[in-house]
Amino acid sequence: MKPKASKEQVSEVIHKIKSVGLTPDVSSGEYQTVIGIVGDEKKIDFEQIKSMDGVLDAIRIQVPYRLISRSYIPKDVLVKVGDITIGKDNPPVYMAGPCSIESYEQLYRIGREVKEAGAHILRGGAFKPRTSVHSFQGLGEEGLKHLQAVGKDLSMPTVTEIRSEIDVEMVAKHSDVLQIGARNMFNQDLIEAAAKTGKPILFKRGFSAQIDEYLSFAERIVANQNRNILLCERGIMPLGGGFKSQTRFTLDLNAVPVLRKETPFPVIADPSHGTGRRDLVLPMSRAAIASGAHGLMIEVHDRPQDALSDGAQAVLPEDLKKIIKVSNLVHKAIRESESPFSSDVSNGSGRA
Amino acid sequence: MKPKASKEQVSEVIHKIKSVGLTPDVSSGEYQTVIGIVGDEKKIDFEQIKSMDGVLDAIRIQVPYRLISRSYIPKDVLVKVGDITIGKDNPPVYMAGPCSIESYEQLYRIGREVKEAGAHILRGGAFKPRTSVHSFQGLGEEGLKHLQAVGKDLSMPTVTEIRSEIDVEMVAKHSDVLQIGARNMFNQDLIEAAAKTGKPILFKRGFSAQIDEYLSFAERIVANQNRNILLCERGIMPLGGGFKSQTRFTLDLNAVPVLRKETPFPVIADPSHGTGRRDLVLPMSRAAIASGAHGLMIEVHDRPQDALSDGAQAVLPEDLKKIIKVSNLVHKAIRESESPFSSDVSNGSGRA
Amino acid sequence: MKPKASKEQVSEVIHKIKSVGLTPDVSSGEYQTVIGIVGDEKKIDFEQIKSMDGVLDAIRIQVPYRLISRSYIPKDVLVKVGDITIGKDNPPVYMAGPCSIESYEQLYRIGREVKEAGAHILRGGAFKPRTSVHSFQGLGEEGLKHLQAVGKDLSMPTVTEIRSEIDVEMVAKHSDVLQIGARNMFNQDLIEAAAKTGKPILFKRGFSAQIDEYLSFAERIVANQNRNILLCERGIMPLGGGFKSQTRFTLDLNAVPVLRKETPFPVIADPSHGTGRRDLVLPMSRAAIASGAHGLMIEVHDRPQDALSDGAQAVLPEDLKKIIKVSNLVHKAIRESESPFSSDVSNGSGRA
Amino acid sequence: MKPKASKEQVSEVIHKIKSVGLTPDVSSGEYQTVIGIVGDEKKIDFEQIKSMDGVLDAIRIQVPYRLISRSYIPKDVLVKVGDITIGKDNPPVYMAGPCSIESYEQLYRIGREVKEAGAHILRGGAFKPRTSVHSFQGLGEEGLKHLQAVGKDLSMPTVTEIRSEIDVEMVAKHSDVLQIGARNMFNQDLIEAAAKTGKPILFKRGFSAQIDEYLSFAERIVANQNRNILLCERGIMPLGGGFKSQTRFTLDLNAVPVLRKETPFPVIADPSHGTGRRDLVLPMSRAAIASGAHGLMIEVHDRPQDALSDGAQAVLPEDLKKIIKVSNLVHKAIRESESPFSSDVSNGSGRA
Repeated sequence: MKPKASKEQVSEVIHKIKSVGLTPDVSSGEYQTVIGIVGDEKKIDFEQIKSMDGVLDAIRIQVPYRLISRSYIPKDVLVKVGDITIGKDNPPVYMAGPCSIESYEQLYRIGREVKEAGAHILRGGAFKPRTSVHSFQGLGEEGLKHLQAVGKDLSMPTVTEIRSEIDVEMVAKHSDVLQIGARNMFNQDLIEAAAKTGKPILFKRGFSAQIDEYLSFAERIVANQNRNILLCERGIMPLGGGFKSQTRFTLDLNAVPVLRKETPFPVIADPSHGTGRRDLVLPMSRAAIASGAHGLMIEVHDRPQDALSDGAQAVLPEDLKKIIKVSNLVHKAIRESESPFSSDVSNGSGRA
Repeated sequence: MKPKASKEQVSEVIHKIKSVGLTPDVSSGEYQTVIGIVGDEKKIDFEQIKSMDGVLDAIRIQVPYRLISRSYIPKDVLVKVGDITIGKDNPPVYMAGPCSIESYEQLYRIGREVKEAGAHILRGGAFKPRTSVHSFQGLGEEGLKHLQAVGKDLSMPTVTEIRSEIDVEMVAKHSDVLQIGARNMFNQDLIEAAAKTGKPILFKRGFSAQIDEYLSFAERIVANQNRNILLCERGIMPLGGGFKSQTRFTLDLNAVPVLRKETPFPVIADPSHGTGRRDLVLPMSRAAIASGAHGLMIEVHDRPQDALSDGAQAVLPEDLKKIIKVSNLVHKAIRESESPFSSDVSNGSGRA
Repeated sequence: MKPKASKEQVSEVIHKIKSVGLTPDVSSGEYQTVIGIVGDEKKIDFEQIKSMDGVLDAIRIQVPYRLISRSYIPKDVLVKVGDITIGKDNPPVYMAGPCSIESYEQLYRIGREVKEAGAHILRGGAFKPRTSVHSFQGLGEEGLKHLQAVGKDLSMPTVTEIRSEIDVEMVAKHSDVLQIGARNMFNQDLIEAAAKTGKPILFKRGFSAQIDEYLSFAERIVANQNRNILLCERGIMPLGGGFKSQTRFTLDLNAVPVLRKETPFPVIADPSHGTGRRDLVLPMSRAAIASGAHGLMIEVHDRPQDALSDGAQAVLPEDLKKIIKVSNLVHKAIRESESPFSSDVSNGSGRA
Repeated sequence: MKPKASKEQVSEVIHKIKSVGLTPDVSSGEYQTVIGIVGDEKKIDFEQIKSMDGVLDAIRIQVPYRLISRSYIPKDVLVKVGDITIGKDNPPVYMAGPCSIESYEQLYRIGREVKEAGAHILRGGAFKPRTSVHSFQGLGEEGLKHLQAVGKDLSMPTVTEIRSEIDVEMVAKHSDVLQIGARNMFNQDLIEAAAKTGKPILFKRGFSAQIDEYLSFAERIVANQNRNILLCERGIMPLGGGFKSQTRFTLDLNAVPVLRKETPFPVIADPSHGTGRRDLVLPMSRAAIASGAHGLMIEVHDRPQDALSDGAQAVLPEDLKKIIKVSNLVHKAIRESESPFSSDVSNGSGRA
């Protein structure tokens, strides 16, 4: 409450809290009165409280995502995609392929190379949400069919992005993992429709979303009875200002240990979109694995200069091979150390 | 090109530019070679150029939105909604009403008050994209019917948000203006579906979108043969950091004169969402009109503490009356000055 | 406290609070225990509390700036500069002049023009903190002498920036108002040295500082027995991202009513630096006054293309004349309305 | 130039370019005229050009930092501190110690523990720039003497922050490395005074500074004939918004490979300040080394709950031991792989 809030104003807030079945806990300080709420805070609308007379602020102490938090699901969740198990102490999973599916031949050619380089899951986009009216827009269902055919021919599970609620059923028919892109992180209807298919969801963090906001949307997947969730850090907006940013996005690796600590779900990093620069994919892949990521998603093209989209960030198949090798070495070095992944994020300080 | 780019690398870039029918313009400097592109730069993919060997950077000089720019449509566009004409030197238009439609009675009660206060268009939400699984989600089509009925009964045109491509037809049947919210600014399919109805579109700027990015999405409305566009500044993400922000969003009034200069379409400001604070709506309404806004969108509730959503930012009907009065006085003072709106944004400096 | 905090952990926090002379207020909820602190929270270090075992978070409810807040100084402070009184309902004050002092002649020539245009205080920089090693660095003390001489010859008080603690005495000898620039907002030693001169301080908000952080540094001026404070909003960092920002900074007018509400000191806006674009100075000046600013600081140059610094944002003297005229009209329209400045920021909603 | 720029306007820009001894390179396209500048672009003020009539924009293609770039100093610079050589392929260097020096005993006690844990350089602050008037402000010169004495007694070189130009000489007398903190990144006078001592400078990136801006200030150290530069990434401002950020800052590891590529100087990461959370220091230390950092700076306290500042981010000495062990393992794994640090950042793609 504000320092000068009247008794009546305090009473009204107390009444409001009781009216939804919660217990208020009033403490009158030297300067002001603080009213705590005992019980499930979700029963009350904090914005409403904030708008009441005499109220200084209404702060939610408990975390805004419940179903997706470790307090609700304490143990690491393992997500299975085909024969691959993702999460916990399993070796890193690598998802690779071109940004856009251009033809069966293009996808097969690149798919074979990424498989040889060590990738487990084939990625490729059929619908491209581009920022300009005039760019290549994707092959649509034809592309999805190529993806399914190449996946089958190479024995690789597949992942592709759904862009619209209308396409959910069609995409789910053709792909093993459904990706929800950063620009759709707030698209509640799409999230719920995708979740209901029961398929694994690769759910990308929006580039302007704080982690708590991201998780409050991810929670909707669990709320629709789907726990096959792969969280994915893919870069946040860089700092603004008079100077042009060196990278298109800023891959936020702080998110990896925070997500591992807050939720039981595997965390994937996407250094291709996360930086927008081919030459940063190798060092940031190593760093992502070292920060605790359970896998990487990497754009690969054998002829980046001819790619119909995002050529500037695609690496060559031989680069992917190097990336996977060194990332596995980093993972192994950490797992065999005295402070492996599984122990380190709960609390960095032993003595405490 | 990079300072040490080889002749072959330069030749390849030149070849690439010619291959799409454009004319390269090469200038070899002391330190480096710069290759200009003469012709419509949209014919070429700059990301592809950037990924070529020896290329330092590929910068698009011409603006990324063409159809929506004043170079394409030089004269101010007037948008008609019912009997109201919005844009250019017309008096400000006021859109007001509750955040969520709760019932016919609630909407009628508030609608009558906002009309008396001077508002022209009735707003009310039927689908609420909230950030928590557990909040009130809106009345859906029932709410749309209330909106249409109250609009008719009060002789006010109406505006409401469409959240999903699936609902476009239904919403268009019931409302005069279709609003696309900030969280859907990147939702290309929704934008195109809404544009195709031909109805006026209130297109809100995403809270993490720079103006050029915003306009590149707004361009899709024009590209679908709809010029009934109301641009809308509704607040950007505040600065991050250790301190909590005073406001939930930062209403970016710089956007108003920039949008008026870059495009011919009317610009609306939303100080309610733009600040998230009831006590800032009055001063920021005055400031928005003074910056050149053609109208305001304001959330009003007669019992904010009971509102099912966004109560903290809704003003009372009597506040709306004050806001409209003083905003009209500010608009009048400027229009009658020696430097009215229409002249001032093209170039602030007379002598130059 | 964390949901599973032990009794011992709770006891230790209670003990800690008592050890500094404060009163803990414990409420044990269904899920967790919350410990409130009654008394002056400044007596305790929240970071220390946060690092204790079992503590989930330590949140400071009371505002972090005390001496500068309206709860400490309730009434509007008026700041006198020469014969001019700034603050409260006084007519807007205009500070204008070139970015850099280039010579006596240049400053006199421009000074005379800005005075004729209606400006009250002459500005000009003697030390320029530029972002490149190779730019013009300012005339130093010679420039300060020109400023003092021109100010005397034109009977205008003067304002200029201090960049270093070492220069405080020298600058105070020559100028009526001492400006602390945005890049020095965190420079505690400089703030304190300037405050101790007793001269009016124009204290600019850092471009990455939230308002509470800004005020916590402004408080140091009051703490050094100087209440002659002019707060100044001069633009925050624009949004980052793949697109280049339209403006170098984003003038944050939300700050104006927030600062007026939180503190008793006058608020100045700087639309020149705040946007970095000459053509936005006129509309944003109007908007700043409409938002409640007590004055404006504007860069003026009679030959912007020859200015040794910041030519792109300087307006011509004849533009300044228009800006002052229309800003005064806007101010007058609001002051004579039924909802003048002084009433509107305490609470926007009458009925509440 | 703008699409409709007149011939006279073009001529004037050409004249201006020639007037400073540069060669203009004019290409007239279908839509507009582009004027390139051949020669050292530093001879011309781009802001002045931008303010000329008919000019659309003036873009500097060459990088804004020259003396500090690899094009000026191509080979990796090694920085020696005592017996330690930092940079290139050398094993990571660890700087550790308390945030604030509280007494000789406290510093010796912690210093001995961090040395045993594997740290090379002892850190400790004597002047604390805190955000509140009421916090602990540091011991000043007394603290510096403790630092020097403990460094000698433990045979460890030392690093400490200089906060003010006035203190440079005193600090240089007592410490081996001079740190310039994030809040002083823009403090040109302090940078130059520190550089002139010839001592190694640990130069921290400002939390709102883009990399190019950071380097343009670091360049001033080289410009003052000091190449003993340790660049330091210490966290940028987190995203703003309605949700509270999980971390106080966002450690930006993208900066590490970018800085390694752009400049020849060693790069240090500070995961303590960079995240503000003790439990993230271990995973982000591993990630920083994997991204290519040449060393780490870590805050250590043996009794974090009693620390007079920043207790929430300090780790215990036994945590430091784990951090150093695993970071060394990660470094070794990468250095022995087929794609070691030194090769990977020049170009991630082999075939290109």
